[in-house]
Amino acid sequence: MSMDRLIENIVKTQNPSVVGLDPKLEYVPEFIKEKKFKKYDRTLKAAAKAILEFNKCIIDEIHDICPAIKPQAAYYEMYGYEGVKTLYKTIQYAKEKGMFVMTDGKRNDIGATMEAYAAAHLGLTDVGGEKIEAFGADALTVNGYLGSDGINPLLEQCKLYDKGIFVLVKTSNKSSGELQDLKIGDKTVYATMGDMCEKWGSEVMGKYGYSGVGAVVGATYPEQLAEMRAALPHTFFLVPGYGAQGGGAEGVSKGFDKNGLGAIVNSSRGVMCAYKKEECDEQDFAKAARREVIRMKEDIISYLPRIAFPD
Amino acid sequence: MSMDRLIENIVKTQNPSVVGLDPKLEYVPEFIKEKKFKKYDRTLKAAAKAILEFNKCIIDEIHDICPAIKPQAAYYEMYGYEGVKTLYKTIQYAKEKGMFVMTDGKRNDIGATMEAYAAAHLGLTDVGGEKIEAFGADALTVNGYLGSDGINPLLEQCKLYDKGIFVLVKTSNKSSGELQDLKIGDKTVYATMGDMCEKWGSEVMGKYGYSGVGAVVGATYPEQLAEMRAALPHTFFLVPGYGAQGGGAEGVSKGFDKNGLGAIVNSSRGVMCAYKKEECDEQDFAKAARREVIRMKEDIISYLPRIAFPD
Repeated sequence: MSMDRLIENIVKTQNPSVVGLDPKLEYVPEFIKEKKFKKYDRTLKAAAKAILEFNKCIIDEIHDICPAIKPQAAYYEMYGYEGVKTLYKTIQYAKEKGMFVMTDGKRNDIGATMEAYAAAHLGLTDVGGEKIEAFGADALTVNGYLGSDGINPLLEQCKLYDKGIFVLVKTSNKSSGELQDLKIGDKTVYATMGDMCEKWGSEVMGKYGYSGVGAVVGATYPEQLAEMRAALPHTFFLVPGYGAQGGGAEGVSKGFDKNGLGAIVNSSRGVMCAYKKEECDEQDFAKAARREVIRMKEDIISYLPRIAFPD
Repeated sequence: MSMDRLIENIVKTQNPSVVGLDPKLEYVPEFIKEKKFKKYDRTLKAAAKAILEFNKCIIDEIHDICPAIKPQAAYYEMYGYEGVKTLYKTIQYAKEKGMFVMTDGKRNDIGATMEAYAAAHLGLTDVGGEKIEAFGADALTVNGYLGSDGINPLLEQCKLYDKGIFVLVKTSNKSSGELQDLKIGDKTVYATMGDMCEKWGSEVMGKYGYSGVGAVVGATYPEQLAEMRAALPHTFFLVPGYGAQGGGAEGVSKGFDKNGLGAIVNSSRGVMCAYKKEECDEQDFAKAARREVIRMKEDIISYLPRIAFPD
């Protein structure tokens, strides 16, 4: 199943981190924006074209040292259907470069509708007998509030096309505890959701001990990350919240197993806006992103054993 | 806030139902599909164009007797960015005809990202100083698993632009109980989420007793619908699951208040595929949709008091 391909990319690059491509227009260097504004005026199309160029330049610079990207759907939808076209083109470009693509959409719905989301983001869409890839990511983040009905159609796509999902378990935001930390009997809501991930995942086990059903567990809650790592041995973690949101490398190390696997840590703004932090020439933004990917990788692996396939 | 405009549309049409535009290509009559296939081949673009024509014909026939449409994002994403363009054009077309548009996206994320979703679906996007409507719905369905951080940015848009949201409380699907029915102390997860809706809604109260924060409660669970109606006096309900999913008019009546307000019932397949059920000429599909909207309205209001603004 799909986590296998992610794990192989991680071992190859010795880098358990993913770059979140959540490109607000304000993150894009002026020289790119001005060029597009000149050509398309100040329109959603101009914004979408600027973001696509920005993304491609970053992918060009990092694809050999970073296993995956995680485009956040919200930041593309914000620029309308033109923005969504850029999401599609970003996904395709990163895949051509060998990267694993996790679309961060946190989709959720009843079964019949999840079939549509599953086709949209992971599978193929039937148009009068032609089977066409609508977005074609390798994995999708999802919300499990609706239970199994909303997950099963995704598992079908995972089996058919070797794809994966990441279910929200304990999110990185401040108010995540309002519901997720409440107790159902003696178990929290997030741990209950974690158990469901293990159950759903048993249908789509991969060859390195992890299933196609991963979980989102925030870097901002290292204790819960350790708790979930112990409780969910077959569930690969997507760990957001490193850097800008406040999560540190020592904390995120608690999401990993003894082979340095079991988790991938996301950074979005840290990488996209590295050129602003460095105060380098904005023409140099993609190289600054590469430098930050390397810095982040070194930071994270300094707390881990050497990353290796399990025996 | 935005539920006021929805309530005004409901009172005007004396119709507390919404048509779900969830158009799988197989629902679209052959003569429309063939026309588009001829022009654009069997592509996502052809599918998107066929669906747009289908939607517009239905909107033309029902806008005077139906207060709202609810396009389901999944069925547009399924056809890629071309499909998402059809979502945008459907929203704009229905609004021009005076309908209230609820985008069913069940979006959810951390605060910074919810700002992007809120701008995308309810507010405006800034492009170098120009403020542009990306999708421009009147309301959006959302998932509250992440707590207040993920809701507050939406409330800002509700205040600024007179918009609304519907939070998933008790969904209509079979497995909704796997998480939602579990008990936190002596309260179910769904009732806990319901309480949050009342709390969030207190910031965006409208003039007819309902706030801008509604809740999704399924027609397939009439008991829970009655329970939530009693517990959440300021929360307007979006009630899916009538018809194809098995919910009946007597059951859904439990979601309403003494003025025949407080809920709006969705039907998707029942209306879109009415021409198939009637076995009428497929050229007549939009008129069949109109007949089904009238049948459904009569069915639902037969269990309700006359719909009227509160004293």
